Amino acid sequence: MPRTITAYSNPLVKRVQGLRDKRHRREEGLFLAEGLRILTEALETGRVPRFLFFAAASAGHPLVRALIDAVEADYGEAIETTPDILSKLSGKDNPQAVVGVFDMFETTLDALDRTAAPIWLVAERLRDPGNLGTILRTGDAVGAGALILVDECVDPFSTEAVRASMGALFTVPIVRVAWGEFIAWLRQGPGQLVGLSLQTEEGYRDAPYAAPTFLLTGNEAQGLPEEYEAACDLLVKLPMRGKADSLNAAVATAVMAYEVLARHR
Amino acid sequence: MPRTITAYSNPLVKRVQGLRDKRHRREEGLFLAEGLRILTEALETGRVPRFLFFAAASAGHPLVRALIDAVEADYGEAIETTPDILSKLSGKDNPQAVVGVFDMFETTLDALDRTAAPIWLVAERLRDPGNLGTILRTGDAVGAGALILVDECVDPFSTEAVRASMGALFTVPIVRVAWGEFIAWLRQGPGQLVGLSLQTEEGYRDAPYAAPTFLLTGNEAQGLPEEYEAACDLLVKLPMRGKADSLNAAVATAVMAYEVLARHR
Repeated sequence: MPRTITAYSNPLVKRVQGLRDKRHRREEGLFLAEGLRILTEALETGRVPRFLFFAAASAGHPLVRALIDAVEADYGEAIETTPDILSKLSGKDNPQAVVGVFDMFETTLDALDRTAAPIWLVAERLRDPGNLGTILRTGDAVGAGALILVDECVDPFSTEAVRASMGALFTVPIVRVAWGEFIAWLRQGPGQLVGLSLQTEEGYRDAPYAAPTFLLTGNEAQGLPEEYEAACDLLVKLPMRGKADSLNAAVATAVMAYEVLARHR
Repeated sequence: MPRTITAYSNPLVKRVQGLRDKRHRREEGLFLAEGLRILTEALETGRVPRFLFFAAASAGHPLVRALIDAVEADYGEAIETTPDILSKLSGKDNPQAVVGVFDMFETTLDALDRTAAPIWLVAERLRDPGNLGTILRTGDAVGAGALILVDECVDPFSTEAVRASMGALFTVPIVRVAWGEFIAWLRQGPGQLVGLSLQTEEGYRDAPYAAPTFLLTGNEAQGLPEEYEAACDLLVKLPMRGKADSLNAAVATAVMAYEVLARHR
C-alpha cells in the first residue's frame, strides 16, 4: 500500500528535493526523473524507481498503476502526495503526475560492442544540460550505440538533462571517460572518428564515412581542442550561409548523425 | 560621456530588469540582449541599443568602445556599471561584459521577397524560448529567408530566446502571423509547404523539394494539427530507430533545413 506524504517538512521530500543538486546526487547515487512518459519508458527498459511520488488525482491512471505495482514488487516505495509537493520536488510550476527517484547507472567502454551499431556519439566538455539531454534524444532516434562523454561534461543525471532527453537517458548507454582512455580504447578495434570543424574544406555531405562512425562534438563555446581534431580520422564542415560561424552543439550533432545514418543505409 | 550607475535601486536598473518579463517588454517595446558577440553582430546589422550597460573593467575593449561610440552617436545612453548590476539585469550569475536594450522590431509577410532565399522556416505554436532561439540560429546558418511564427508562439524577444539565437535574432527576419493569413499569403505565389509528420511514408531523404521551400515545424508536444498537415504540399518523415517517436523541435527543423539546403544546391 502506498503511504501518503502531505508535509513539505517531511525528511524524504527534503532529501529528494536535494537531488536537483549535483553534490547530493553523487553522495546518494540517486537521481530524479519526472513524467508518466519518461517513467513508463524507464520501466520498459527495466529501470524501476526506488521511490515513486504520484498525485492522488492520477492514482487511477493505468500507467500510474503499473508504475506503483512495479515499484512495490521491486521493494521500492510508492508515495501518494500533493501537486504542491510534486512541484517542489521537480522545481517546476506545472508538476508532472509522477516523479521517480532512480539509482544512477553507467556503462564502461569495455562493455560496448562496437559492431552493434553503425553510429556512436561522442561529446567533449559539453556544458549545457539541455544540449546533453537533446543529444541523448537524437542518439535514441538514430540508433546510436552509446553517448560517450569525454573529459569534464555536465552531469547527464541533472534534472534538466533528464527532462530534455525525454526518456532517452534510459535507452542510450552512457559512458564517462577521459580523452586518453577513449582514444586508447577506440584504436583497439574498428572505428572512424569524425570531428566537426571549421579547419577543413571537406563538406559533410560528400565525406567518406565508414561504420562504425564515432561522431565527435566539441564544447559549445570553444569547439574541439586542436590535438583532439588532430586525432580524428576525418574532419568535416557544415555549410554556414549566414553571419554566424557555428550551430548549437545539439543541432550540429543531429545534422551530422542523420547524414551518417543516411549514408550507412 | 557615459554616466555611471552603481545602485541597485536606480530606476533605470529596475526598468531594464523588468524587460525579462513579457508584459513589460510589450508595454515598453524594448528587449534585452547580452554579450559582446551578440551586440557587435547587432551593430553590424545596423541595430544600435537605446541603452548600453557595460562593466567598468571592459570599457577599454575596442568592441565595447565601438558600441559606446555607436550608442552615443545615435543619441542613446551608454552607462558604466558594476558586474553585480549586470548580473541583476541579465539574470545570470556570470554576467556578460555588456547588456543592451533595443527597440523591438518585426517584419510583415508583405515585406518578404520569396525569391530571395530557397529556404524559409515556419514554426507553429512553439513554446520553448531555447528552441525558438536555436531555430533562429539554424535559420542564419542555412540562409533562411525568415522565420515565420504562426499562431501563439513564445516571444522571440524573451531573454532566453535572444541568448539561444546567438545573434541570429538580428540577422534573420521574424514575422508573427495567424495561420489563415500565412496560408493566404503563401498561396499568392510560388512556395512549397513541407511539414514533418509521422502520418506519411515519404522519407525526408528522397522527397521532391522545390524552391522556395517553406519548412513547417509544429508544437513541441503536439506536433502539427491535422488541418495544417492537410494544407501542406508535402509531408515527410525522419527515420526513428529508437524507442522514441520524435526529436527535439529545433533538432528536427535543423536536420530538415540542412537536407533541403543540400538538395537545392
